[in-house]
Amino acid sequence: MSGFGDLAHIGHVELLTPEPERSLRFFLDAIGLEEESRDGQSVFLRGWGEYQRYSVKLTEAPEPGLGHVAIRVRSAEALERRVSMIDRSGRGGGWIDGDTGHGPAYRFTDPDGHPFELYYETERYEPPEHLRPTLRNQPQRYTGRGAGAKRLDHVNLLCRDVAACRAFATDVLGYRHYEGIVLDDGSEAGAWLSATIAAHELIYTQDHHRARGRLHHLAFWVDTREECLRAGDIFVDAGIRIEFAPSRHAVARGFFVYVIEPGGNRVEVTTGGYFVYDPDHPAVVWTEAERERGQYWGNATVATFHTYGTPPIEGVDD
Amino acid sequence: MSGFGDLAHIGHVELLTPEPERSLRFFLDAIGLEEESRDGQSVFLRGWGEYQRYSVKLTEAPEPGLGHVAIRVRSAEALERRVSMIDRSGRGGGWIDGDTGHGPAYRFTDPDGHPFELYYETERYEPPEHLRPTLRNQPQRYTGRGAGAKRLDHVNLLCRDVAACRAFATDVLGYRHYEGIVLDDGSEAGAWLSATIAAHELIYTQDHHRARGRLHHLAFWVDTREECLRAGDIFVDAGIRIEFAPSRHAVARGFFVYVIEPGGNRVEVTTGGYFVYDPDHPAVVWTEAERERGQYWGNATVATFHTYGTPPIEGVDD
Amino acid sequence: MSGFGDLAHIGHVELLTPEPERSLRFFLDAIGLEEESRDGQSVFLRGWGEYQRYSVKLTEAPEPGLGHVAIRVRSAEALERRVSMIDRSGRGGGWIDGDTGHGPAYRFTDPDGHPFELYYETERYEPPEHLRPTLRNQPQRYTGRGAGAKRLDHVNLLCRDVAACRAFATDVLGYRHYEGIVLDDGSEAGAWLSATIAAHELIYTQDHHRARGRLHHLAFWVDTREECLRAGDIFVDAGIRIEFAPSRHAVARGFFVYVIEPGGNRVEVTTGGYFVYDPDHPAVVWTEAERERGQYWGNATVATFHTYGTPPIEGVDD
Amino acid sequence: MSGFGDLAHIGHVELLTPEPERSLRFFLDAIGLEEESRDGQSVFLRGWGEYQRYSVKLTEAPEPGLGHVAIRVRSAEALERRVSMIDRSGRGGGWIDGDTGHGPAYRFTDPDGHPFELYYETERYEPPEHLRPTLRNQPQRYTGRGAGAKRLDHVNLLCRDVAACRAFATDVLGYRHYEGIVLDDGSEAGAWLSATIAAHELIYTQDHHRARGRLHHLAFWVDTREECLRAGDIFVDAGIRIEFAPSRHAVARGFFVYVIEPGGNRVEVTTGGYFVYDPDHPAVVWTEAERERGQYWGNATVATFHTYGTPPIEGVDD
Repeated sequence: MSGFGDLAHIGHVELLTPEPERSLRFFLDAIGLEEESRDGQSVFLRGWGEYQRYSVKLTEAPEPGLGHVAIRVRSAEALERRVSMIDRSGRGGGWIDGDTGHGPAYRFTDPDGHPFELYYETERYEPPEHLRPTLRNQPQRYTGRGAGAKRLDHVNLLCRDVAACRAFATDVLGYRHYEGIVLDDGSEAGAWLSATIAAHELIYTQDHHRARGRLHHLAFWVDTREECLRAGDIFVDAGIRIEFAPSRHAVARGFFVYVIEPGGNRVEVTTGGYFVYDPDHPAVVWTEAERERGQYWGNATVATFHTYGTPPIEGVDD
Repeated sequence: MSGFGDLAHIGHVELLTPEPERSLRFFLDAIGLEEESRDGQSVFLRGWGEYQRYSVKLTEAPEPGLGHVAIRVRSAEALERRVSMIDRSGRGGGWIDGDTGHGPAYRFTDPDGHPFELYYETERYEPPEHLRPTLRNQPQRYTGRGAGAKRLDHVNLLCRDVAACRAFATDVLGYRHYEGIVLDDGSEAGAWLSATIAAHELIYTQDHHRARGRLHHLAFWVDTREECLRAGDIFVDAGIRIEFAPSRHAVARGFFVYVIEPGGNRVEVTTGGYFVYDPDHPAVVWTEAERERGQYWGNATVATFHTYGTPPIEGVDD
Repeated sequence: MSGFGDLAHIGHVELLTPEPERSLRFFLDAIGLEEESRDGQSVFLRGWGEYQRYSVKLTEAPEPGLGHVAIRVRSAEALERRVSMIDRSGRGGGWIDGDTGHGPAYRFTDPDGHPFELYYETERYEPPEHLRPTLRNQPQRYTGRGAGAKRLDHVNLLCRDVAACRAFATDVLGYRHYEGIVLDDGSEAGAWLSATIAAHELIYTQDHHRARGRLHHLAFWVDTREECLRAGDIFVDAGIRIEFAPSRHAVARGFFVYVIEPGGNRVEVTTGGYFVYDPDHPAVVWTEAERERGQYWGNATVATFHTYGTPPIEGVDD
Repeated sequence: MSGFGDLAHIGHVELLTPEPERSLRFFLDAIGLEEESRDGQSVFLRGWGEYQRYSVKLTEAPEPGLGHVAIRVRSAEALERRVSMIDRSGRGGGWIDGDTGHGPAYRFTDPDGHPFELYYETERYEPPEHLRPTLRNQPQRYTGRGAGAKRLDHVNLLCRDVAACRAFATDVLGYRHYEGIVLDDGSEAGAWLSATIAAHELIYTQDHHRARGRLHHLAFWVDTREECLRAGDIFVDAGIRIEFAPSRHAVARGFFVYVIEPGGNRVEVTTGGYFVYDPDHPAVVWTEAERERGQYWGNATVATFHTYGTPPIEGVDD
């Protein structure tokens, strides 16, 4: 059984930052998220189009990187099924009571050691008066501040063994494998996974430094390519370091702009791509030679895009 | 059991036209579809982003309107499950061997009498040399001709009893109900249904004339609002009658432009809207007063949009 | 002598408002202007792309409407030439020493009584630290706040006698006449005038109520149609009354969204249109029947667009 | 006297190609121009927004490169004035009777030897039935084919001595100098010149190989950044070599995509930038260090962009 259908989506990601104040300003002013609440060293942030209370838990930490990825499942039964499968895989970590905005969560790690949580019970967002939308089918007022991010879109995790992580994601979690890269030596260099018709929600790419548990990037959705370009313009004048200027990916065909937030994590503003309506979609697997051809319009990939991750590796990424 | 998860998507729609040559030119030149094949009085047409051979079967007929809606299911088992449920509902119509591009299909009608088919086996599109894409994750070359429609997006069916059709779609077919309109007298005026995270794939709206089996419109997807505007510009200079100029819907928040194709059917070019990632999404139900407020930006709905359908009603719609 | 070449552009417009605080918030938050300075009951506002200190002088007054239009000329000699011509026309009003940001200005009125000023000497904008742009060919940081207006684009003045105002603008001021509307009775209903290749900078349209000196609207430029749509989205959620939802004009082919600011004045966010590179461009004159066909995509013009102006006319516009 | 105001705009450019058939298909299908007429080894091509009959004269020749640049002046008197100044500069070449679509023209060369013509009398475009626009203020039907180029926008000429060419353009022709690059050794590396408020119409950049009379590129205007991105998508699938993927320039702030047409010439699709309304605009002069920072979003300039031109230099550019 493929198990497809148990996962709803990535509910939120906990992001670690050694520069909590500056990272917060970045997400509020440049990405355009709203602060929903605070708890200890964490601030909970949300995009205007999100039905849950938040999608980013920004937590102060000595180093940047991933705190955890929390996936919401489709039902209580789906949660049970997945927990039992994770348990059997030997990667289970036990239950926690919940966190701000959601109920009991089951902790586990992927084969690379990235912390994950699975949960079902959640709180729907109730906007305060100043963020109440005009139309009821929109969870929050659209303010258009900064990049105007609508919602968290996907997470890209660096890992030592893409094949192992990809197999865990498909076989144990129930993700579908839509695109991939296989090098000439037969090793997998990347895997694009999704729980829905969206072309990717969870991505694994090979860690150039063979480190474990690192984060490649977190991506936020906007509805048009024009908004990605505009985000680039805002970043330039806000003095935010653009790592990879607005352009279009070959893999998954999405539009992007990548920046490094003040805490050191890579953040993408993205749109476009395609929907996978085919329930039997055969994964599109790219060769090493094809990857060499660069991005959609034939332009070269920025070198650091293949090497940098968080936490950075001392003497290499700094 | 909600049955959510059995349907993949609307595979194609058969559209009837009394002006086959002019309708064909419209879909090729103005909408930007490609002719994939022909059979008898039918021409099979496709958007550049579609994995199946076609999404529109354009068939000559005395009157414009809907031929049938063909829904692809996710698996052979899903097909069995749904057929048995339809059968039990008393609306089943028996099997056909298949048609160009797909295998055995089960025929049925919705409570309003619109013909539907369910099928699973399908043929993936193999582009001819002149339509071979540069990147393998794209089914066909992007030519940009006309509106450059990427794929069939949704169908809006007029019906006498929206509640009955909506209940059949959710309870028997397994659609989810994302948005709706309920009038002051308690009757349903519209229901927006989806088998995926897309905000709507099948829509039922009340037939102003209380007729049965009519079509409101067929919608094609483009990726940006700019492409909808550009489609409007192309339509103006191609002498195609724009019924509802480019604007944004309040319900489902999608961007649109509506035209009447030469055969008389209403066709939309659409983008935008939102994804429903919440597996327990409570349907957003609009009141009569809210509907009166018009579209997203407060602009009035064009009068014919509430009354015209195909086949047109003699003495009323002509 | 046509005198073309003496005028540079409309340097600023003084706008009157009975709701100074709310109007100011509108221009800052919704249109995205910056406050440059204050003087008495006036606040000086600027778009991010403007080389002068400001383009809007927002002044508290009992009623909304136009304070004055200030046109910058190309040189000291041009100023002399134009002043002498205005003088001879009998509409001259004498010199003032200048105002915030510019030097001596010559006052006059058009045949409808709208106050104008001509000036040459000006101060170039020096951004404060927090608005310093990254690139030196941009006068100010792009913040993207609200509609992100780049600059004042044009002014549309209501008048009793379009032909007289148009003739004064071309023959005395040196504007060029690019488009116009002439009704079946031979009267002019509108005139689109420009001092540059831009399709319009000063517009006269007939006052439906035969009043004098009223303002139809003030327009701000953004670079893309997508930004106009986005402005519409922001206006909806900011509770600003959209009078005419985003669409495209037939005359001058510009893209627009019109709102009523809290003080009552109509404000447009615009882009598009075309450049008039032809030095002998014959004015495109539309007939009454053509005007009846509505806007570019055939959509109807909102009724108030033909009647409302500021100051409003008691018992009619309220 | 600066002479500003005598030039209207670049009326057309003659482009040489050793691959006339393939170059023609490129301009028709990929750029979206229309063939207006033919004469001998030349085809005359036009964008849909142009008031003259054509803007590109595509001529078969042994090597790619520039045939000539033809500038239209604002009046017969302006033509006389400019011819007399060119004459005095010693660069005049005498009159020709005219060419398809325009009257008598005066030939001259710039200090680098690029052939130019000045003319005033011209024929306005009369569209054939199938290209008649719906609205009379548009010269031609918008078909949206390929990149949908609206009009020729600017020409970039490579030259040995930028300062000499720039001085000739401003002092003799009457262009204005809006932006420039001056290297650390004091030499000029580029000059952006305009006869209108458009940020550039004629550009001189230093020839890396110190050759003379070469062409850097020809640019066509579209109205939105989205259209440039879409052009990139079309080029990819049409197998056209994109040299510089869609992005944004730092100098002049324009949006671009550069391709090499089948004959070898570089062609740009462009939009954006800014208007220079300031009649006393001080040229923005960039330093060598600033140029090193790359394009608007900080991305690197493609290496060939600094070296390649037409005709190519044997052993270097091939």
